[in-house]
Amino acid sequence: MNNFTYYNPTKIEFGKEKENNIGEYLEQSGIKKVLLVYGGGSIKKNGLYDKIIISLNKNNIAFEELSGVVSNPLLSKVNEGIEIAKNTNIEAILGVGGGSVADSAKAIAVGAKYDGDVWDFFINKATISEALPVFTVMTLSATASEMNGNSVVMNDITKQKYSIASVLVNPVVSVINPELMATVSPEYLAYSAVDVISHCIEVYFTASVHPNFNSRIVESIIKTVMQTTEILIENPNDYDARAEFAWAAIQGLNGLTPAGTGGGSFPNHMIEHSLSALFNVPHGAGLAVVIPAWMKWYKVQNIPQFKRFSKEIFNSEDENVGIEKLENWFSKIGAPVTLKEVNIPRESIEELAINANELANLWGFGALYPTGSIIEILEKA
Amino acid sequence: MNNFTYYNPTKIEFGKEKENNIGEYLEQSGIKKVLLVYGGGSIKKNGLYDKIIISLNKNNIAFEELSGVVSNPLLSKVNEGIEIAKNTNIEAILGVGGGSVADSAKAIAVGAKYDGDVWDFFINKATISEALPVFTVMTLSATASEMNGNSVVMNDITKQKYSIASVLVNPVVSVINPELMATVSPEYLAYSAVDVISHCIEVYFTASVHPNFNSRIVESIIKTVMQTTEILIENPNDYDARAEFAWAAIQGLNGLTPAGTGGGSFPNHMIEHSLSALFNVPHGAGLAVVIPAWMKWYKVQNIPQFKRFSKEIFNSEDENVGIEKLENWFSKIGAPVTLKEVNIPRESIEELAINANELANLWGFGALYPTGSIIEILEKA
Repeated sequence: MNNFTYYNPTKIEFGKEKENNIGEYLEQSGIKKVLLVYGGGSIKKNGLYDKIIISLNKNNIAFEELSGVVSNPLLSKVNEGIEIAKNTNIEAILGVGGGSVADSAKAIAVGAKYDGDVWDFFINKATISEALPVFTVMTLSATASEMNGNSVVMNDITKQKYSIASVLVNPVVSVINPELMATVSPEYLAYSAVDVISHCIEVYFTASVHPNFNSRIVESIIKTVMQTTEILIENPNDYDARAEFAWAAIQGLNGLTPAGTGGGSFPNHMIEHSLSALFNVPHGAGLAVVIPAWMKWYKVQNIPQFKRFSKEIFNSEDENVGIEKLENWFSKIGAPVTLKEVNIPRESIEELAINANELANLWGFGALYPTGSIIEILEKA
Repeated sequence: MNNFTYYNPTKIEFGKEKENNIGEYLEQSGIKKVLLVYGGGSIKKNGLYDKIIISLNKNNIAFEELSGVVSNPLLSKVNEGIEIAKNTNIEAILGVGGGSVADSAKAIAVGAKYDGDVWDFFINKATISEALPVFTVMTLSATASEMNGNSVVMNDITKQKYSIASVLVNPVVSVINPELMATVSPEYLAYSAVDVISHCIEVYFTASVHPNFNSRIVESIIKTVMQTTEILIENPNDYDARAEFAWAAIQGLNGLTPAGTGGGSFPNHMIEHSLSALFNVPHGAGLAVVIPAWMKWYKVQNIPQFKRFSKEIFNSEDENVGIEKLENWFSKIGAPVTLKEVNIPRESIEELAINANELANLWGFGALYPTGSIIEILEKA
C-alpha cells in the first residue's frame, strides 16, 4: 500500500426532505447571503426551487441567482457567476442541481476570491489558496462532486474541458435526497451509472498497487450501481434503490477508492473529455463508448486485475468475459458503446486523440499515450 | 435506506515515516503547545517517542507529558491529564499509542474545557459543546478511534466502562504508519481483529434496514481483516497486510458502515464492556467470548442476514455455519471464545448482565435485553 492523505470534510445530509433544511445548514455556518446556482429551470417546475427559497427566507439568508448551467458546464456561465459574486457581497455559493451545477458552483467559489481569470486555475497558471464556501442540493447522482473538491468546466472558446481540484471547494454541506432524483430520465440514469463505474475502474485497473481492500470497495460500488440501476429502470420510484445508487456514487469518487493505491491515471476520462468538448456528447455517454474500447486495448497490461474484475463482477474466470459483459450491460441499460452511436465520424479520431493528450499533459501525466495508441483505442469504438 | 448525516472531518496521514511530520501537522493547525499522552513507555524503547519530540522541537511546539495510560483506560488518568491541560495552557492533546491512548486524549480534550467533572459527559449529565483539538499517532489498529469521535473510559471507582461521542473530538489529524504496529503481540493482533469484526457485525445484524451496499462494505472489511490477520500471524512484518488491516479497521467504525441503516444497537459491546469493567478482560478478548454466544442467541431474529453472512464470508448456505466458522476462526487466531478461558466464573454472569443493562440504559437503548436473556447469552459462552 502506498502512502496517502485522506481528508474529506464535507458533511452529507442524506435523505427525505433534507432540502428543507438548507437554510438552516447555511445559517449554522454563519452564511448571510448566497449565490443560488442552478440549471435550466426544472427545479422551478418540480417545486424544489420554492422549497429552497422558503428555507433561505426562514433563516434570513439573502440570495442572488444564476440560472442556465448546462451539462458540460461552460466557463462563460462561471464567469457570469463570478461577476455577481464579486459585485453583490456573496458569502457562499449554493448549487442546486447535478454535477454540472456543483462543478460550476465550485469554479465560481474559486473565481470570486481571485483577481485574475479563473481559467488560470484550470491551466495550472495559478494555485487555489482561497475560495468561498460551497453548498449543494443534488438532483442527480453520478459525479460525486457533492463530496469532493473537483470541478470540470468547459472553456467555450478554446473547447477545452479541463478541471481543478482543491479541498477548499469540497462542499461544506451537501444535501442528497434521493426523491429529488426520481425524475431523472432513463437515458441520464444510464449515463450516470456508466460515470460511477468509470470512476471506480480507472484506478482499479491503472493504479500502481492493488490492495485487496480497495478492490473490494470498488467491486461493492460497481455491484451496487449495476443492481440498483436495473431496479430503477423497472421502477424509477424505488426509493431504496435510488438511495443506494446515490450513496455508492459518492463513495466512487470521494477519495476512498484510490487511497493507498498510488492513484492511477484517468485515461478514459481524458479521452472522453475530448468527446464532450469537441462533440458535446454527455459525459456518461462518451464514457460508455470509450471504456470498453480502452479495456480491450489496455487489458494486456494488467491481466490479473482484469481476471479479478471478470470473476467478481460477472463470475467468469476469463478476463475477456468481464469486458464483453460490461459492454453488453452498457448497451442493455441504453448507453451508446460506439462512436457511431454518438455521431462522431471516424475522421475526427485524430483530432480527439490530440485533444486528449493536451489534457493529459495538463493533468500532469505527460502524454496520456502516444497519439497513435489513442487512435487505436478509438478505432475499437 | 434511512436518513442519515455523515460527517468525518479527520484528516488521515497514512504511511511510512509520517510520524516524523506530526510537528508540522500541529503547526499547520496553529498549535503552539500540546499535552503528549502515551502508555507504558514502549514508545520510549522503540524510538517513536524520540521521533515525536524531534518533530515537535523542529516546529517549535512546546509540550507537557502524561504517561501510563493502560488498556481499558482509567478515568483517574484522564483527570490527571485534565489538570495538566488546565494548568499549563495546553492548546491540543496529542495521543501516541493505541485506542486507549486516543480515547484518553479525547476525554482530556473535553475535560480541559469544562469546569465540572468530566464523568458528567459519560453519564449524560452534560453535553459536549467544546473541546481542545485532538491529534493522534497510532501504534495499534482496532478501535478506529483515530477517525471517530468516540471515547470509552473506565471509571476506576464505580467500575463503569462508559463512553462519549462527539465530532468535536474527532482527531484533527491522525497519523497511521503501519510500520509502528509491527511489534504488536500475536495476542493483541487477534484481539484487534475481533474488535474490528465486532464493529462491523453489530450494525450488520441489528440495524433496522440492511442496504446491500452497506452489507458489501462490511463484508469487504471482514474479509480484509481475516485475510490480513492470517498473513500477519505468519509474517508480522508484512507491511502491506498491516496497512490494509489498519485502513480497513478505520473504515469499520468511522461512520461509513452504519450510514443509512438506521444505526442498530451494540449488544456485544455492551455485554463485553461489563466483562472488561468487572474482570479487566482485554476488550477484543471479551468480544471474542461474547460474539459467538450472542450470534447463536440472536440469529432467529434475522435469519436472512445470518444466511448472507454465512454465504459471503464462509461460502455456505447454512446460517449456522457462519457462526461456527467465525468462532473457530477466533480460536484459531488465538482469541478466547468461552468465559472459562478468560477466568470468569459462572456465578458472575448475573452481575455482568445487570452491569450491561445499566450501560444500555445510558446509551439510550433502554434495557438492552431482559437480564434473563443476557444470562442466557452468557451461559452459551
